[in-house]
Formats: sequence, C-alpha cells, structure tokens
Amino acid sequence: MSEPVCLVIGAGAGIGGHVGKRFAKEGYHAVLCRRSDGAGLERLVQDIESEGGRATGYLLDASEPDTLEDRVVAIEAEIGPIEVVLFNLGAQIGNRSLAETSDKQFELGWRLATFGLFRVARAVCPAMEERGRGTILVTSATAAMRGNAGQHSHAAAMGGRRMLCQTLNAEFASKGIHVAHVLIDGAVDAPDTLGKLLGPERFEQLRAARGREKDGLMLPREMAETYLHIAKQHRSAWTHEIDLRAYSDTAWWNHG
Amino acid sequence: MSEPVCLVIGAGAGIGGHVGKRFAKEGYHAVLCRRSDGAGLERLVQDIESEGGRATGYLLDASEPDTLEDRVVAIEAEIGPIEVVLFNLGAQIGNRSLAETSDKQFELGWRLATFGLFRVARAVCPAMEERGRGTILVTSATAAMRGNAGQHSHAAAMGGRRMLCQTLNAEFASKGIHVAHVLIDGAVDAPDTLGKLLGPERFEQLRAARGREKDGLMLPREMAETYLHIAKQHRSAWTHEIDLRAYSDTAWWNHG
Amino acid sequence: MSEPVCLVIGAGAGIGGHVGKRFAKEGYHAVLCRRSDGAGLERLVQDIESEGGRATGYLLDASEPDTLEDRVVAIEAEIGPIEVVLFNLGAQIGNRSLAETSDKQFELGWRLATFGLFRVARAVCPAMEERGRGTILVTSATAAMRGNAGQHSHAAAMGGRRMLCQTLNAEFASKGIHVAHVLIDGAVDAPDTLGKLLGPERFEQLRAARGREKDGLMLPREMAETYLHIAKQHRSAWTHEIDLRAYSDTAWWNHG
Amino acid sequence: MSEPVCLVIGAGAGIGGHVGKRFAKEGYHAVLCRRSDGAGLERLVQDIESEGGRATGYLLDASEPDTLEDRVVAIEAEIGPIEVVLFNLGAQIGNRSLAETSDKQFELGWRLATFGLFRVARAVCPAMEERGRGTILVTSATAAMRGNAGQHSHAAAMGGRRMLCQTLNAEFASKGIHVAHVLIDGAVDAPDTLGKLLGPERFEQLRAARGREKDGLMLPREMAETYLHIAKQHRSAWTHEIDLRAYSDTAWWNHG
Repeated sequence: MSEPVCLVIGAGAGIGGHVGKRFAKEGYHAVLCRRSDGAGLERLVQDIESEGGRATGYLLDASEPDTLEDRVVAIEAEIGPIEVVLFNLGAQIGNRSLAETSDKQFELGWRLATFGLFRVARAVCPAMEERGRGTILVTSATAAMRGNAGQHSHAAAMGGRRMLCQTLNAEFASKGIHVAHVLIDGAVDAPDTLGKLLGPERFEQLRAARGREKDGLMLPREMAETYLHIAKQHRSAWTHEIDLRAYSDTAWWNHG
Repeated sequence: MSEPVCLVIGAGAGIGGHVGKRFAKEGYHAVLCRRSDGAGLERLVQDIESEGGRATGYLLDASEPDTLEDRVVAIEAEIGPIEVVLFNLGAQIGNRSLAETSDKQFELGWRLATFGLFRVARAVCPAMEERGRGTILVTSATAAMRGNAGQHSHAAAMGGRRMLCQTLNAEFASKGIHVAHVLIDGAVDAPDTLGKLLGPERFEQLRAARGREKDGLMLPREMAETYLHIAKQHRSAWTHEIDLRAYSDTAWWNHG
Repeated sequence: MSEPVCLVIGAGAGIGGHVGKRFAKEGYHAVLCRRSDGAGLERLVQDIESEGGRATGYLLDASEPDTLEDRVVAIEAEIGPIEVVLFNLGAQIGNRSLAETSDKQFELGWRLATFGLFRVARAVCPAMEERGRGTILVTSATAAMRGNAGQHSHAAAMGGRRMLCQTLNAEFASKGIHVAHVLIDGAVDAPDTLGKLLGPERFEQLRAARGREKDGLMLPREMAETYLHIAKQHRSAWTHEIDLRAYSDTAWWNHG
Repeated sequence: MSEPVCLVIGAGAGIGGHVGKRFAKEGYHAVLCRRSDGAGLERLVQDIESEGGRATGYLLDASEPDTLEDRVVAIEAEIGPIEVVLFNLGAQIGNRSLAETSDKQFELGWRLATFGLFRVARAVCPAMEERGRGTILVTSATAAMRGNAGQHSHAAAMGGRRMLCQTLNAEFASKGIHVAHVLIDGAVDAPDTLGKLLGPERFEQLRAARGREKDGLMLPREMAETYLHIAKQHRSAWTHEIDLRAYSDTAWWNHG
C-alpha cells in the first residue's frame, strides 16, 4: 500500500478535521493525530471512511520527545509518502497576566506551537526534498502578528512560529517544498476549541443563530477549501502568507 | 442580456488577460479594458470567444476623468452586473533617481495605481452593496511593502494603494464586498510588460529555457487560478492579503 | 548671514511649532512655514526670539506649484544651509465613507502629504548631498500602517508617504542624508489640530484634567526631544522608523 | 546604599558594556551580568569605576533556572531599585540547515532569547509597577522581522521575543513600565561577538580602516545614546519599536 498522505497534526473537529476530510475526498490518505479524545478521533476516521475516503487516526502527545518523529517514519513506511502536512496545533491558554503565567505554561506554548513545527518539518523535509515536492500548511493566529495583553505565552509561540515558517520557506522552497502560513484572524466554529471555551449551551446558541458567520464565526469546512487550494498551487505561483477572516469581522489591524 | 461580469482594468497578455480568460471559462462575461493596442485587445476577445466564452474589449485611459466611471455605468446597463473587478494597472516606470523623477511621472504613478482604484471602487461599490455581494481583486507589487531605491513613484503609489485596499475592506466587507490585495512578489511571464522591458529576443530566450519558472518567472495562467479561488471563497473565510511568488524565487523579506 | 536652518513645513502650535522651538534652542535658525493664520505664525516667531533664538515665518500653500521649491532656494540663498527639514503636513479630514469622499478630497490628501514630501525632498537633497549631510524628519500617523474605515484619503496618502520615506532613505542614506519616519500613534495635545476638531471648550476641559497625558494626549514639547535626538544620532546608528505614543494609550496593533 | 540600578543582562564589550557605561555616567549603578569571561567583566567594572561611576559585575547563566530571578531579588535588596533593564542576550549561532539544527540548539535559542526575557520581566515588573515606573530595553535583531535561510533557531527565538515585547507593553505601559524593542539592523563593532566570529586579525583589519562605520559597522558607544534617550523619554511620548542601522548600510527590507 502506498497512498499519498495528508498528515494532520492537531486533528480536532474544527480546521484539522475538516482539512483531513477535504484532502481525503481529493484522494489523500488522511492521517489524523491528536493528543486526546480517542472517541472523537475514531468518529472522524469513520466519517471519512463512510464517504469512501481513507483515514487513520493516532493519539499523540506532541510535547513528548520522538512522538512526532516516530510517527512520520512509521507513516512513510507503512502508509505512503507524506505529500502534505497540516500543522494545526494551537497554544492558546486564554488571557493571563504576566504574574499568573508560569514557566511551565510559557514553555508549553513554545514546545507545542513552535518546537513542534520545527520537529515535524525536520522529520518530513528529507523525504519531501528527495521527492522534489511537498507541502507544509501551518495554521496560525493573529497572535503571530501582534502581542495583545495577557497573551505572553501564545504570542511568543506564534511569533516564533511565523519566523520559522519563513526560515523553512527560505531553505526549502527552491527544493520544491511549499510552506504556507495561514493566518486565522477570527473565531472558528470549532466544537473542540471554541465550543469548550464557551460551554455546550452557549456554543449551540451561538451556532443556532441563522447565518452563523454573521457573528464572525468562520466555518472550517469552507476554510478547508483554501488550504486545499494552496496545496494545489502551481509552483510558479505559490502563496507563503495568507489571511482568512469572516466577512462580518474586522481585520486585526483595524480594531480601535 | 444580463450576464455576470468580470471587469478587468489593465487587460494585457499577462495577469489581466489570463484572469479574464479564466473567469470567462467560469461563465463570466469578461470585460477587458486597456489603454492601447487595440489589436492585442481584439485577439484576447477572440481567444475567449473561440473557447466558447463571452468577452468585450474597450480601449480606455484610466488617467482621464470619467473614463472608468462611465465604463462602469455602461457595463451595468448594457452587459450585466459587475460581480468581479480585477484592478490590474501597474505604475512601474523602472528605477529613476529622485532628481530624474519629474512631477508628472510621480503624479502619473499615483493617478493610475492609487486614484484609479479609488475611482473604480467608488463607481462599482453602490451596485455591489445593493446586491449584497461583489469582489474587487487588486494586483499589487512588492513595492507596496517596501520602498527600494529608484522606486519613488512606484512605491508611493503602491503603498498608498495597499492602505486603500484596507480602508475599502474596512468599509465594505460587512456589506458583502470582498476586497483582496494580491501581492505579486516576482517577475511575471508577461509579454506586454516584462516582454517589452527586455525586448522580444531576450524575452524569448528567457521563455524558451525549459522550465520557465525555474528562472523565477511566474506563469499568469497559473496565477489566475488563485485569483479565481479568492473570488469563490465563502464569505465566512475571506482572504484580504495574499502573496504569490515562484518556488525558485526568494521572498522579498529574505533578500540580503 | 549663514546659520544652520531647521525648516518646518507645517508649523502649527503642536509638533511643528515645538520642534521649531527645540531646534532654535539648539542653535538652528527655525524657518516656520504654514498655510494660514499669520498671527499664530508671528506669535511662534516671537516666542522663539524672546528666548534668544532665531526664527522666520512664511505663509505657504504646499498644494500650489513651486511654493516649496522656491522657498527652499530662497532660504539657502538668504538664511543658511538647510540642515534639518521637518515635514509635518497632515492630511486628516476626519472619517468619510467612500461615497462621500470626492475626487478633490482624495487628491488633496495625496497632494499635501505624499507629493509635498516628494517635492521638498527633491528640492533639498542636492544641497544636502553636496554637503554630505542632512536630516529629513517626517511626522507620520497610524494611517501609514493600516487603513481604517472612512480613512480612504488619509490612509492612501500616508501609506504612500511611508514607502516614499523608504525610497528616499534607500537612495540617500549612504550620501549622508538621514530620513526618519516618526509614527505618531495617538492624539497630540495640539490646539491647531485636535483643538479645532474638539472646539475650544471641550479641548480646554480635556487639557485641564490633571495629568493631561493620562487621557492619552501626547505633549508636543516632549515629543520634540525625540525629533531632536534623531537629528543628532551618529551616522553609524541611525533610526529610520520609530513610533511614539502615550504610556496610557494602546498601540495600534493591540486594539480589539 | 540605595542607588538607581541599570541592570544589563548580556554585558559584553559591545552594546551591553557601552550601555552600562553610558547609564553609569548618568548616575545609575550599572549591574553587569554575563555568562563567562570574568576578566572581561572585571575590566568593564573597572572602566566604569575609573570614570567615577558605580558598577558591579556578576557571572550568570541565563539558561539555568532561578539565576535571573535570584539576581533581581538580590540587587533590589542589596544595591537599589532596578530602574532600567537592558536585555541584551543574543541567540545567533550562525547559519545552519534544518538538518544540522539540533533540538538542543533550537531550544537554547528560545531559552536564552525568549524565555530569558519572560523570566526577567516577570521578576522585575512587580517592583517597577509598585514604584509606578521602570524601563525594559530589549536589543533585537533583524531576525525578529523576517526569517532568513539557516536562521531557524535564531529567527524563531527573536520573532517570539518581539511579540513578547508587545504583550509586555500591552500589560505594563499604563502602569508606567516602558518596554522598548530596539532592532539592530546591521553588524556591530563588538569584539565579543563579531570579533570572535571573524577572528582577531580580520576584525582588527576591519576596524583599522578609517571611518569604520563606512563598512556598515555600528559603533556601540553611539548606539548607547539612543538607548539612553529612550529611557529618558517622557511618558506622554514613548517609543515602543525603533530600528538602528549604519548610514552606509541597507535596510533589511531593501535588500534584493
């Protein structure tokens, strides 16, 4: 068996899951990794399979050594070439004052969101370079562009990650590896992140309102189309940095 | 007759022409405007028609009063609703020292590239707003992001234009009008601009080399796919700023 | 008579006047230009002279041809070498929708704020280059960095001006001419601009409050210290872009 | 004894040492910390004392837990209030491909340059907040703005650090703590960093050339004037982001 693989690191019910589904429809084997909630992961795999796609799920703690690296090796050996990676790990822990931000929290943000990407890229790039092609899609947040109050851990991690996307692009673009930094500038209609933040009741009230995106909620199913487009861009016209937000929302630079 | 229109301001044989063709394939009536070369314009219209598309061409001087405004009115009355505008006018005049840059040149850059977009947007937005939808795609250049030596006129015009894209987006996004700033960060394989700059012989030598984009030339046919994708994005996930460059090229921020 | 001149274009009672005063204390002959209010201009000149400084005032319409150029020639001939220029013309006309922004307004913003700087720079740079030194300080606004709703004219003018500062720096830094873009990110305690906007009563109420800057008002007398510092920087360590805001205010990128 | 303290983290013979000297001249007790070279540290202390200033030196490994925090506590108890901090730790390890960048190197960059600033800020801010004033000056590098090839560790660390400066500013500006990000966009005439990189002979040849800064070398003695100016800015007009480069050099955004 050797199918082109789309590896999703951070495959919840929002962007990660929807991008996995979209690439599965396109013929990729979706390899879905997340830290916890095996049942949710299994549902995602079954959703894809029930629509005729191929998917495999793994629970994986990206903050632990070798987890990402070993998974990459096993996928290349057992499933197929990793053509696309979606690095979708967040590090948002809500707003905390400096005094309330512990060393451990600050470090964990970096370990997941910055160091995790570094490790995945180092693991997948050699095979991509040998094949002369590959795509690394990185979900990013407004905190990569500016540091708001209370975002010490998150903004430092995301700001570092954006620069890392640039260094990766600078080294690997000419070798056929396309790295794209996708800035999500708004709230995503994602049960596993926003849903947990708001609680089920408030989240459903929010979603039930007609025209969800009128409230500035971004629909991950629609966002996945842009992730796919970027992965399919011809190499003479690659996008490295792109933003996404709801029509009803305000760009981060316009607030105030 | 009332067909959805894709209006291209600056329809040469590069990005403008290819975007016109691509949208025509998608069912839009391509209305192609350029300042000169009626024969080239006619060829472009015929190309589109020979592939079963609808197209109309106009010669139009965007630096003259009322030209853009009158054309917009006539199109809405005679052809159909302008669903998409591609504003594709450049203002590159090559590198000139400050002493060698005349008032007239400096003003012309602004008049075409900045004021032209302002005028087109003011002409098309009322109808788009009434219809609750519309897309304005703006081809931009690296000079919108940084000012290199010798680029006084071009960079001032493009920098102003980028801010104008942001003010337009800030006013009109919530009304359903999608404004996108597409940063072209490299040389385009375009006979009417790069071709004229190099002369026919050198340009053909450059193009003849196998794997054109290896030299960093961006293929406008491929770029048009991204313009189309942006116009088709769901309104819950719109892109406002995106860059495009050849895989073999270096990002503007990496030089040096 | 040949005294080093600090030429202020836009010399009201705020930044322009205070920078003029500060440089006069430093030994420069302050040449103060503004469009109107000859009485206010005269007071400013007398203030400087009463403290033992040298100053001359001119009424000058920067939107008219040759006014800036002729003034530069006359100063160099009659007063002394223009060592420092403060370009302090604004183009803020308040928020206006696109429909309410006329061609004339849009053009005037550019003519004063962008084209005006181009003209002044082209007029002063040859003599500065010959002397191997000179400083051009440009007061800028947040609108140079992002385009808010209603700011079509202002943002386009300021965004173009920022790029122009970069092209000027790129051409002239190595020739000893220091161009600095000073981003004023907040409201200035300036009677001629903010004062007129608010009306005298509300403005005085605002100012009377103890610790004016607690309300985010920036004190132009204090800002002038930074303008002076930039002009005195050693050429091995020049600043090209700097921001200024009140401690009690929020950075433009943080709003929201 | 209770003297206002200027604490320098990263006090070599370049920026750190010169800023320490400059603030000592201004009446601050310079507390100089560096990881190694006790002899060099001692010379620096003696230089300051021989000019009538007050200084104390400590060897300190900022990558070790509690080192920074304990030093801050001890200084406040034994020397005086820390009015100014210069965070001057770099993380430049030269260019390395992704494959050649180890986990340890990538982490060390973050640990020194990003996490170190977080720890120092958390240690000094409570006392500064209680006093209602304080200044944190952060030496930054071009890698905070863009990621060049081979700079994976450095750019990720510096990009995170810039965002951290913004989150610190967002939380603490209104409490009277001034955080400034000083972007050093060029090579500094610094024996301990550039000197070691080039070797003594090549470095001396470079320095011996008349008009050192003609080669784009920035003189740390002159740079220190701007650090001091920022620390002395009135709170109604604070700078948060500033760049410095030699007149003979090219801005990072202009290369190419």
